Amino acid sequence: MSEYRGYSGRALEFLKQNKVKVGDTIKITTDSDYTGTIMPRYEHTDDKHIVLKFKNGYNVGLEITQVKKVEYISTIEPNQEKNTTTVFNPSLPKVLLLSTGGTIASRVDYRTGSVTPALSAQDLNASVPELSEIANIDAEVLFSEYSENLTPEHWIKIAQRLDSLAKSDYKGIIVAHGTDTMQYTAAFLSFSLAGFPKPIVLVGSQRSSDRPSSDAATNLISATRFIVDCKVNGVFVVMHNTESDDEIACHLGTRVRKNHTSKRNAFETMGGKPAFIITQNEIIQNFSGSYFKEAQYTPNIKIDTKVALIKYHPGYDPKLVDEMINLGYRAIIFEGTGLGHIGKTMYDAIKKAREKKIFLGMTSQCLDGRVNMAVYESGRDLLHLGIVPLSDIISETALVKAMWAVATHDKNIEEIMLKNIASEITE
Amino acid sequence: MSEYRGYSGRALEFLKQNKVKVGDTIKITTDSDYTGTIMPRYEHTDDKHIVLKFKNGYNVGLEITQVKKVEYISTIEPNQEKNTTTVFNPSLPKVLLLSTGGTIASRVDYRTGSVTPALSAQDLNASVPELSEIANIDAEVLFSEYSENLTPEHWIKIAQRLDSLAKSDYKGIIVAHGTDTMQYTAAFLSFSLAGFPKPIVLVGSQRSSDRPSSDAATNLISATRFIVDCKVNGVFVVMHNTESDDEIACHLGTRVRKNHTSKRNAFETMGGKPAFIITQNEIIQNFSGSYFKEAQYTPNIKIDTKVALIKYHPGYDPKLVDEMINLGYRAIIFEGTGLGHIGKTMYDAIKKAREKKIFLGMTSQCLDGRVNMAVYESGRDLLHLGIVPLSDIISETALVKAMWAVATHDKNIEEIMLKNIASEITE
Repeated sequence: MSEYRGYSGRALEFLKQNKVKVGDTIKITTDSDYTGTIMPRYEHTDDKHIVLKFKNGYNVGLEITQVKKVEYISTIEPNQEKNTTTVFNPSLPKVLLLSTGGTIASRVDYRTGSVTPALSAQDLNASVPELSEIANIDAEVLFSEYSENLTPEHWIKIAQRLDSLAKSDYKGIIVAHGTDTMQYTAAFLSFSLAGFPKPIVLVGSQRSSDRPSSDAATNLISATRFIVDCKVNGVFVVMHNTESDDEIACHLGTRVRKNHTSKRNAFETMGGKPAFIITQNEIIQNFSGSYFKEAQYTPNIKIDTKVALIKYHPGYDPKLVDEMINLGYRAIIFEGTGLGHIGKTMYDAIKKAREKKIFLGMTSQCLDGRVNMAVYESGRDLLHLGIVPLSDIISETALVKAMWAVATHDKNIEEIMLKNIASEITE
Repeated sequence: MSEYRGYSGRALEFLKQNKVKVGDTIKITTDSDYTGTIMPRYEHTDDKHIVLKFKNGYNVGLEITQVKKVEYISTIEPNQEKNTTTVFNPSLPKVLLLSTGGTIASRVDYRTGSVTPALSAQDLNASVPELSEIANIDAEVLFSEYSENLTPEHWIKIAQRLDSLAKSDYKGIIVAHGTDTMQYTAAFLSFSLAGFPKPIVLVGSQRSSDRPSSDAATNLISATRFIVDCKVNGVFVVMHNTESDDEIACHLGTRVRKNHTSKRNAFETMGGKPAFIITQNEIIQNFSGSYFKEAQYTPNIKIDTKVALIKYHPGYDPKLVDEMINLGYRAIIFEGTGLGHIGKTMYDAIKKAREKKIFLGMTSQCLDGRVNMAVYESGRDLLHLGIVPLSDIISETALVKAMWAVATHDKNIEEIMLKNIASEITE
């Protein structure tokens, strides 16, 4: 790790002059006194600020021109080896924790100032000792990105690594993942790894583990218990169900949405209860049936990002659809209003798109409920124009499914989109 | 009304040959028998079907090539004059019902086969007799469009008509409106008519009034009671609060969202309770304070639609932003992930947009909670790139506000966007 990671120009100069570096705890005096640890910065940031993390977990950016005094206090050594040894317990199943980044993997970051969220098995067992009583956990870091920076190429890497583990002796795989785009990744894994024979459980946290309110440990423990106790395969998302620690929800990966920016119970199953509720004493099952509608494992790990998601609104400019046609888009998912409508001003652009054989699907910005384009004449118009109503598939899942469908199927995109593959349609 | 409205080609020929027309009740035999009223059709429809409405309120499209027999039963005369006379009651206040279309105004449609939802005062008082005990209702049809077909030009017309009524003797104005884009219209009226001195109440219905489950009458009665009983001005949306008729919600027009495609209680106030709950016996007030943050009435009825709403997702193509720049867009609202994030792949496009002085605002696709771009480094990057976090303004309201702000203010768009005008920001 660079001692000045992410700092450049004047800010870097400032650190060097004051003989302090990332990971040092210092006291800075501007108009007030601030005591905290110097945090690394990411690319694209300015050179006017340094970032301190306070003991309460919050970060603050301080403008260097305002600094009157810098006082060195102590240094936390990064990547400190712990003496904890993980003992393999032959009576317990094996579970793999595959880390992709996000807040859940950011404890090491914040404590030591390192940006490499290297969650080793030792780290994990040391910080969440309950885990070793449930399963033998192996940990592997696939990459370390906050999920807002994940791209479909990352999805491919996750799917490929999981595919290579289909016949392993792991009982299931936990994917530690940032919460921002977790539902998009869950949807991609659901389609590209249809029929995967083990549970894949995405776990995140809304508060990093160095904060007293962190949900990281309880979510990890619950995911592990779910994998060990429940005999189901599928792609799931395990996050808090309430604001307290006593109810953790396990959602179907294709039907979950992050519906709050900051609450610990930000995730909700759309149109129903969470598939499972994990409490201290039991796992309550609300979902029966199979997650994957066909039992056979048929991996098909491809994606084509020439797919648009249009949130329709009055005044939406049809010229943007023309541009999608020009750019060679292969599918457009309309997030329409109400039962699945878009205005007449869009009809000409839709006709042009259909002439180019672009698949056009309809979901609703209502989030909940099913699209039904047969109720009103305007819906029927859109049906006649060739827009396909996508039942109650949620918009984000429909987008990802279309990205996958156009990459894996030359024709019959409509048929694939309407086929219930991974519980994306409520039956 | 044309007797064959919306029918062309083979379908028109079929009606003429069988000597039946729109509004006739007929029995059609295909493989089964269907008895219902011939419904008018809209433009853009094919010429292969005729549409019948059954007594239960549902429509069906029947393919004419499958028809074996047509039997005429009866005709409902359109626009039948009723003998009900509205008597002005000087002890009650006056309320205007301004109709723009939508399901709430579709009773006449469905019963008579007419597509002109001419809600006359007589019609209204006859069908909802309770109204005349609460207020003297005048009715006026501004236009008749399902709200998915409304455009910002329609918003302007509604706002101009309301502006002309600012000093009238109406206690308040009810705007009958389709539910699909009701929240967008409510937002526009809130900004363009800031400080309007009377309550403006948008009312819709999820089920047309010819169906037993219609919510039209209860919503209208509740809106009228709200106007008469509550001494507040502002822009509100009155719709069912539960699936039954006993609780009607009155939402703040800038904070409401249609969150279910079909339920009667589809509308929800984001991030809080409805401002008022109207029950059989009382009106419960959850909202105190003023809807408009400045008391003075300052109408400013303009709009510029060169504003985009981008729902960000992994794989979003920055070239679409380039195209918005080329098309001369003046503002872009990003509906980001989580606390207000978009991926690094967008940074270059964002820089280009900022160079062109395009206003860039951030909301969250989480729907609930506030954006906070200071928590994570990626959020801070976006702040440095010039994206403005829009607190907890909901995406659709932010879009409409930006359309209004760029049309009414040459500079300081950021200042206007962050100024709480009509309770769009929860304080």
